[in-house]
Amino acid sequence: MRYYPAPESAIDMPDLIEAVRMAFLDQGNGRCEMPPKSYVTLPGGDFRTMPSYLPSLKTAGVKVVNVHPGNRSQGLPTVMGLTILLDPPTGKPVAVLNATGLTDLRTGAVAAVATHALAPVKKGTLGLIGAGRQARSGLLAIGEIFGIESVNVWSRSQKSAERLAAEFSSFDIRVTSIKQAAGSDLLLTTTPSTSPVIMNDWISDGTHINAIGADAPGKQELDPILLRRAEIFVDDREQAVHSGEVNVSIRDGLLLPDSIAGTLGEVLTGRAGRSSREAITIFDSTGIAITDLAAASEAMKHGEYIELPFLTECEH
Amino acid sequence: MRYYPAPESAIDMPDLIEAVRMAFLDQGNGRCEMPPKSYVTLPGGDFRTMPSYLPSLKTAGVKVVNVHPGNRSQGLPTVMGLTILLDPPTGKPVAVLNATGLTDLRTGAVAAVATHALAPVKKGTLGLIGAGRQARSGLLAIGEIFGIESVNVWSRSQKSAERLAAEFSSFDIRVTSIKQAAGSDLLLTTTPSTSPVIMNDWISDGTHINAIGADAPGKQELDPILLRRAEIFVDDREQAVHSGEVNVSIRDGLLLPDSIAGTLGEVLTGRAGRSSREAITIFDSTGIAITDLAAASEAMKHGEYIELPFLTECEH
Repeated sequence: MRYYPAPESAIDMPDLIEAVRMAFLDQGNGRCEMPPKSYVTLPGGDFRTMPSYLPSLKTAGVKVVNVHPGNRSQGLPTVMGLTILLDPPTGKPVAVLNATGLTDLRTGAVAAVATHALAPVKKGTLGLIGAGRQARSGLLAIGEIFGIESVNVWSRSQKSAERLAAEFSSFDIRVTSIKQAAGSDLLLTTTPSTSPVIMNDWISDGTHINAIGADAPGKQELDPILLRRAEIFVDDREQAVHSGEVNVSIRDGLLLPDSIAGTLGEVLTGRAGRSSREAITIFDSTGIAITDLAAASEAMKHGEYIELPFLTECEH
Repeated sequence: MRYYPAPESAIDMPDLIEAVRMAFLDQGNGRCEMPPKSYVTLPGGDFRTMPSYLPSLKTAGVKVVNVHPGNRSQGLPTVMGLTILLDPPTGKPVAVLNATGLTDLRTGAVAAVATHALAPVKKGTLGLIGAGRQARSGLLAIGEIFGIESVNVWSRSQKSAERLAAEFSSFDIRVTSIKQAAGSDLLLTTTPSTSPVIMNDWISDGTHINAIGADAPGKQELDPILLRRAEIFVDDREQAVHSGEVNVSIRDGLLLPDSIAGTLGEVLTGRAGRSSREAITIFDSTGIAITDLAAASEAMKHGEYIELPFLTECEH
């Protein structure tokens, strides 16, 4: 059995985007097994368990990942994770991967796949709402498939926004007001907000929004009026209704589950999609297990690992 | 982060039995978080994901375990597993344990706890139906809390039964017919059967049966008439109805979910129990996640481990 302590360093972003796209395509074609993510509440946070099986990659496994918003004060990431991979025909564990950095990269790759499938244009301005790890990986990934003419970044912490802008100075990037950032052609929202930060009035027709931040019950980043105005696509219907951007509006009766226009898998297989150039599209991302399998499989191709004994005595 | 390649070798059975008993007590008192086990189908088998949080042990985590009945032909165990433990207040992974041998020991310890709580006598004859790893760990564990006067062992494979009998020659042990084994005061059934192997007529009043084998939809070891005659206790109601000994009879309308007399946790807290000396009691064990946490915590006390790097870069 292998242990990969830093598998994210072995990832090639274009390969990861393609692997994630194939995973969504498999999902759209019903070629995966993926029970809903399950949540366990802990003091100061929670952890999520994400099992799945992806026949096309001949891999199965589970990601275990926490969310503890207070961790930063202890010098720990808010989110840390491990992924276990199994050999499908025997169930034998083949690898354990540190999924902390890998999760950021796969989330960025997912936003890139959704942007490629749903944005009405191939280039334009990118607005970043939130300036943490997911904003960084999203910027890198979207840059691979979208012609980023300029970047407008906003964060509740001006310092965070400035740090991100300094780090990505190879882009035409500036720190702006939230309203200005929201006026971009393409948006990536990655805040942990539990009340809307993006107002309907700020969003122009034809915008595509990757709504990444809301991934647990009670979280939301977008004005409910904007949700009703837009065409909403999700990664997984059940997870989105439970814990995605739409969860609060559905809970409060402001949105019907039936108003979800489709899954990204359905978009990739041609069974759903934006209705017009002018429509606003929202991709509501909760994070699905098969994309973690895809990322782990990519990491195993070139990542450095430690070989571990996995002793098994055959049954009598 | 620690990796324990063979944590079962560090387990002291009486300590494990006590740790498992405390876990059931916590469950009975509502002091744990435990979503239902989830199943993913694989070619030739499946894997189960079992997350939970046990505040009394200050530990949380997930066991991932497969069941592949054809593995023996490849020299691999049918069941293999890994357990991940997290630090509850930060969610940081603290350990990965090979749960293969540990799962057998905890299943034995669970049978011992149920026997102590539900058998109407403290000593007598033990009947083993099935002669694999779970029969061995069950025999060892039950021997710690029950005066085993003699052991009657039956297996579909006579050779397996003979091997077990030779291995445990310190007991007064013999290979018998299934009917004779079923006539014992205390039973431990550990077969992977999908049709009843124990008939109602063979079972005397006052018998206690630990029904371990059925742990997936479609599996059953006991005559449905026996289920209706007995007082049935389960480890977890939802899991039992879905995949325990009662699952087929409930599916077929032969048994009502309401006829379950209680959980082992309720028995330990005094809210349920056998009604009389003459009643037949069945403990329907599906395997619950908190008992795996308890076993992993025990193993960490004395087990040998490999220290692994778990690199985490703090968020921006």
